[in-house]
Amino acid sequence: MDIDLVTIGTELLLGFTVDTNSAFMGQVLGEAGVRVARRTSVRDDPAEIRAAIREALARSRFVITTGGLGPTRDDMTKKVVAELFDAPLEFQAAIWDELVAKWARFGRKISESNRCQAEVPRGATVLANNRGTAPGLWLAGAPGEVVMLPGVPSEMKGLLREEVVPRLRTRASGVAISSRVLRTTGIPESTLAERLAEVEDGLAPLTLAYLPGIEGVDLRLTAWDMTSEQSGPLFDRAAAGIRAVTGDHCYGTGDDDLAAVLLERLRAAGLTLAVAESCTGGMIGERVTHVAGSSDVFLGGVIAYANELKTGLIGVNPETVAAHGSVSAAVVTEMVAGVALRTGADVAVAVTGVAGPGGGSDDKPIGTVWFGFSIRGAVDAIKVGFPGTRADIRGRASQFALHGLWRRASGV
Amino acid sequence: MDIDLVTIGTELLLGFTVDTNSAFMGQVLGEAGVRVARRTSVRDDPAEIRAAIREALARSRFVITTGGLGPTRDDMTKKVVAELFDAPLEFQAAIWDELVAKWARFGRKISESNRCQAEVPRGATVLANNRGTAPGLWLAGAPGEVVMLPGVPSEMKGLLREEVVPRLRTRASGVAISSRVLRTTGIPESTLAERLAEVEDGLAPLTLAYLPGIEGVDLRLTAWDMTSEQSGPLFDRAAAGIRAVTGDHCYGTGDDDLAAVLLERLRAAGLTLAVAESCTGGMIGERVTHVAGSSDVFLGGVIAYANELKTGLIGVNPETVAAHGSVSAAVVTEMVAGVALRTGADVAVAVTGVAGPGGGSDDKPIGTVWFGFSIRGAVDAIKVGFPGTRADIRGRASQFALHGLWRRASGV
Repeated sequence: MDIDLVTIGTELLLGFTVDTNSAFMGQVLGEAGVRVARRTSVRDDPAEIRAAIREALARSRFVITTGGLGPTRDDMTKKVVAELFDAPLEFQAAIWDELVAKWARFGRKISESNRCQAEVPRGATVLANNRGTAPGLWLAGAPGEVVMLPGVPSEMKGLLREEVVPRLRTRASGVAISSRVLRTTGIPESTLAERLAEVEDGLAPLTLAYLPGIEGVDLRLTAWDMTSEQSGPLFDRAAAGIRAVTGDHCYGTGDDDLAAVLLERLRAAGLTLAVAESCTGGMIGERVTHVAGSSDVFLGGVIAYANELKTGLIGVNPETVAAHGSVSAAVVTEMVAGVALRTGADVAVAVTGVAGPGGGSDDKPIGTVWFGFSIRGAVDAIKVGFPGTRADIRGRASQFALHGLWRRASGV
Repeated sequence: MDIDLVTIGTELLLGFTVDTNSAFMGQVLGEAGVRVARRTSVRDDPAEIRAAIREALARSRFVITTGGLGPTRDDMTKKVVAELFDAPLEFQAAIWDELVAKWARFGRKISESNRCQAEVPRGATVLANNRGTAPGLWLAGAPGEVVMLPGVPSEMKGLLREEVVPRLRTRASGVAISSRVLRTTGIPESTLAERLAEVEDGLAPLTLAYLPGIEGVDLRLTAWDMTSEQSGPLFDRAAAGIRAVTGDHCYGTGDDDLAAVLLERLRAAGLTLAVAESCTGGMIGERVTHVAGSSDVFLGGVIAYANELKTGLIGVNPETVAAHGSVSAAVVTEMVAGVALRTGADVAVAVTGVAGPGGGSDDKPIGTVWFGFSIRGAVDAIKVGFPGTRADIRGRASQFALHGLWRRASGV
């Protein structure tokens, strides 16, 4: 089943708003077996909206629109579609009563100018919007079908998932585009591609895409136009093949967050965690505490940005700093041992490096980062050179620290 | 001057890629006086690409495309456009030599399959791409004009700014859509709107948009179809009016980052900074150290997530925690005094609160956050209730801490 999307809003064309709705809609519809054949964005202008919807109906007979459903003068999608379908707008008292009640719940009185929100093209199905005021509308007739959704992302997403997809699924053939993602870190994209060459040869009919980012390379397997019964075993076999090659560089699937995966492993082993951060400046702590419920594992630690804090707060010997410099195996070892000792944590990581853009030297160029790991008192240190900007280097260093902890905490 | 955008890529319609290019293009073109009349996205299918570009040319006579310029079978934009313009593709040795040299710089040998990247529709202007391999192409003829840009964001952006906009600017009328943003924090959108009602009445012909986010409300003033000579004085007068109402809730303009603005103020006053973070878990340190050159102001601090670290690392009295709980004026006061003392920082902030989703109680509901500020030894504490999710509460608390430091460091 092919459909057209029409997204409506002057802000979209001016570039004041990034269109994140469309990607979400493409994914959710694709999973339901519906293919987006074309996407058109037009400004809040009735002639433009009319032309775009009419052309889309001529192509696909089925159109989903977003935007232009609010109470202001700019919002004219409903009026235009009603005209296209020759369906007069009718005031529905039940919708108005619900709008009045919604406003009252927020302690406000609705103004009469909102009455247009209770008008519905004759024959349209009203899709209840639990996250906002403007309901979705589904109109079928001679020109085809148009589903009108609000442009506010949370409202659009709710209506699409709860009201639109279930109705479409019954019409779709059961085959769909589906995908599965494996998350890796610590292997550059080109190396990963070389190592996976043999696995890739045997993946058909699945396809494999490499999605590199600061935190590593995600591997997306895609099944094209299959039922879930067909794609499921193919995904399982392909994932096993990839995992056999990537080993513990593969830390999860889908949206798995490395900090959350690490916390689970430490929690299962009954281990507590502390950090000593110099060049990452709090980023590792931030990522760990972003995860709800981290407090049973994570104790905290020290942001030892200035050298005086490395010595003052976690007991690094000033002579070590003087002899080796703050970006060194000796200092990072004392940092991690110090923070483990002073916090009593079972597991700890320390990071010190040159994030740039200043501070690089011939023997410690920008991107040089030392890591110290302490796992129940067993300490090791490792040096890595990261490419990229200051933000890249800090992001990559945080990821490396979390990954290093996760690997080392395996089977402890 | 009106143009059409056509973005090409199956990944865009499947939702595997969020289309950030379009917003960038809308903004940059708008500033150059060019209006995007419509945007169309199609998949990598020659018939679809041909139809979309032909329709766009019929509407606007001028079309910019992105995507479909690479060396693979999927990349067919150039071929389709060449056919539409009846302009045969011609191999250009100069482009090929440049491609060979580019690959050699990366230590690789180019394969013959890339020869198609050196083919150019007869009569097209070649736009040099310094960030990638596929050059941009500009073709003018009977059907109108088409500018073909690669889909890779960094390459598209470079070509648009350096090659396309300068050529378009000479044709545009000199009037443009331009905007100026004032950044505020600490006033809810509705309150801000009430306070600014009178200012808003006098803004015409400028318009004002409220852009609320976790970090505060950005106020965007927009001038429609004016020269910069016309809009400049209007912006200045409007900004002064808004600043008079928002006072020190307005901390910057455009892309100004509050952490960077704070660092500038502390640097100018010769003050050093330390943090003691509980519920924000390192987020304040992360934001401060994200700014290049922060090390002359920021010393570091403590992530005092567990109570034992509040007592152990910065000397909070265990009896204070027992008597008042860790989310209290008494504890946050001892935290900020302790971190200032142990780091020797001139200025410090401490944060302790209930970020949720667990841990709330009747007298300390989720969102309750205590802040302690120490400015050259003068300590104060303040309690705030933040709405939203765990991520919202942590983000808002970090912003409040930075803003509180910035206000208090004024004139010190």
